Amino acid sequence: MSAQQQPATPPSPVQIFNTVQGHQRAFALKAAVDLDLFTAIAKGSRTPAEIAKACNAAERGVRILSDSLVVMGFLTKDGNRYSLTADTAFFLDSRSPAYLGLAFKFLMHPTQLAHFEHLGAAVRNGGSSAEDTTLAPNDPIWIEFAKGMAPMMMPAAQAIAGILAAELSSRPSAKILDIAASHGLFGITVAQRLPNAHIYALDWANVLEVAKENAGKQGLTDRYHLLPGSAFDVDYGTGFDAILITNLLHHFDPSENEKMLKKAYNALNPGGQVLILEFVPNDDRVSPPVPAMFSLTMLGNTPKGDAYTLAEYGTMCRNAGLETPRLIPLEPMPESLVVARKAF
Amino acid sequence: MSAQQQPATPPSPVQIFNTVQGHQRAFALKAAVDLDLFTAIAKGSRTPAEIAKACNAAERGVRILSDSLVVMGFLTKDGNRYSLTADTAFFLDSRSPAYLGLAFKFLMHPTQLAHFEHLGAAVRNGGSSAEDTTLAPNDPIWIEFAKGMAPMMMPAAQAIAGILAAELSSRPSAKILDIAASHGLFGITVAQRLPNAHIYALDWANVLEVAKENAGKQGLTDRYHLLPGSAFDVDYGTGFDAILITNLLHHFDPSENEKMLKKAYNALNPGGQVLILEFVPNDDRVSPPVPAMFSLTMLGNTPKGDAYTLAEYGTMCRNAGLETPRLIPLEPMPESLVVARKAF
Repeated sequence: MSAQQQPATPPSPVQIFNTVQGHQRAFALKAAVDLDLFTAIAKGSRTPAEIAKACNAAERGVRILSDSLVVMGFLTKDGNRYSLTADTAFFLDSRSPAYLGLAFKFLMHPTQLAHFEHLGAAVRNGGSSAEDTTLAPNDPIWIEFAKGMAPMMMPAAQAIAGILAAELSSRPSAKILDIAASHGLFGITVAQRLPNAHIYALDWANVLEVAKENAGKQGLTDRYHLLPGSAFDVDYGTGFDAILITNLLHHFDPSENEKMLKKAYNALNPGGQVLILEFVPNDDRVSPPVPAMFSLTMLGNTPKGDAYTLAEYGTMCRNAGLETPRLIPLEPMPESLVVARKAF
Repeated sequence: MSAQQQPATPPSPVQIFNTVQGHQRAFALKAAVDLDLFTAIAKGSRTPAEIAKACNAAERGVRILSDSLVVMGFLTKDGNRYSLTADTAFFLDSRSPAYLGLAFKFLMHPTQLAHFEHLGAAVRNGGSSAEDTTLAPNDPIWIEFAKGMAPMMMPAAQAIAGILAAELSSRPSAKILDIAASHGLFGITVAQRLPNAHIYALDWANVLEVAKENAGKQGLTDRYHLLPGSAFDVDYGTGFDAILITNLLHHFDPSENEKMLKKAYNALNPGGQVLILEFVPNDDRVSPPVPAMFSLTMLGNTPKGDAYTLAEYGTMCRNAGLETPRLIPLEPMPESLVVARKAF
């Protein structure tokens, strides 16, 4: 390398190290969740010895794990005493309503982890060729999603309920289709805000058991109806005021999505709207970081899925007969709402 | 949560997302290395279509992978054209002398990845209880280390050679013991700077084949001597002017390390020195990030290993009879040298 070509600062491999170590970091956070270490600290255990006793673990193991969590930004350290950051207390204390610990069973499910050990093949093929791409009927992984991801979806559920309440609360009744209902949180939250609304929840039969149970706990059984099966195959019926499609379209290619959106269009009343909850990157596809990275998650886990831009959702919606959608950010949550109306 | 307890900014799960996604990020970088994507870009392929052709991969897969590499900071993007960052060009173009791609076979070796899937058990036990902790005689993983890690060790090897040249170049001969010689780079670099030095390389017999071959390529066979076996068991001999212990002590607990340092002390001439290459965190054990995180790597991969502070190495060295060591940082590389002398 000539003097002219030398970079201004010495080359550093630290970013390479940190990225390769991402595997270890992910499992460190999972180990802390599995040990319920954050809750132990929240309850007052602070030193490695105290935390080890509360978590039934070795002091040495707790010391090393906790130090790594300080480096990663989940804990702070003063002398040999650890404390939770505000975000950690909110999301990782198992007593918090926003607890995300159960989401780890989905986010780090062995099936999904295994897909990424073959990411090179997915890049060569243009998509995952794994047989277990989690898109098969009644795949049990969606039970883990349904049980674990509801707290992470609460802000989005409240945003959706707010939008629909503003439009529908003055009406004597409302009919809402909740596609890929999963835990049921979206439809349930809407039903709580709209006492005259009926919710039609569509998902695999095994997953709908989770949604049904959650709806029952909220006393909504009479207004909660089940549509078991594939969103591509089940007859939606008609007369809907709104259709929710949450965390689903990223699994498929645009032509498949247009088929589903066309079905939604046909099921909607004039003036009704589709509310799509998704990871929506900017047109550059490399920002914001979390939505942009979600495209990789779909490359590894699905044959044809992707994170689509608002412009791409616009094309899909218009091809399905819907109007051009608007984007509603839900920051600091990483997903956004894409809302498209059926013309009157 | 009362108004007084509410954090000033809304709680954000982004750091949790990013950390869990670390698994995917690590495999994304590995996929790019496996496809030699960075070299393709360095050679002039810029768009997804051009890179896909050069890498024999799908354009869609390359587009998504490359976008993720932009988010992770390894590429830049202008329109649909990708470029390498300076660090990426230096370390991940396979034509670069500093190429780190071969290190991935060690850093992401399936054995090491598997250990971290049981990290919770290691925290409970205070160390890995895996039977394959890579400390067994002739474990083939050290062949991967020897073949892949040499470029990453070049700055340290040059630093070691510089220190020894300053002290020993005026002498008629020098005798250097290279413990855990691996690729042989450290001893070989010293031999190149000190034409009268003889190197004694100690490692598992299968690993020494790599070192021996590398020494032969440099024309050093006559001055390169092999000591196959365990550093705890092999007779070092006596009369050494310097002893290198590189990337080894982190695998063991302090009492084991003191045994090895005592053997080194006995093998050294008066005034000779031990040069220890290690990840050395500060006394707070949570900085700098890479050395601090290395403790977790050892928790997951070894029964009793750790990243030790300078103070801890000081205790080990003094207990072995050596003088208090000094620390020589090798920034921007994440390791440091700990150098301890045997008194005259």
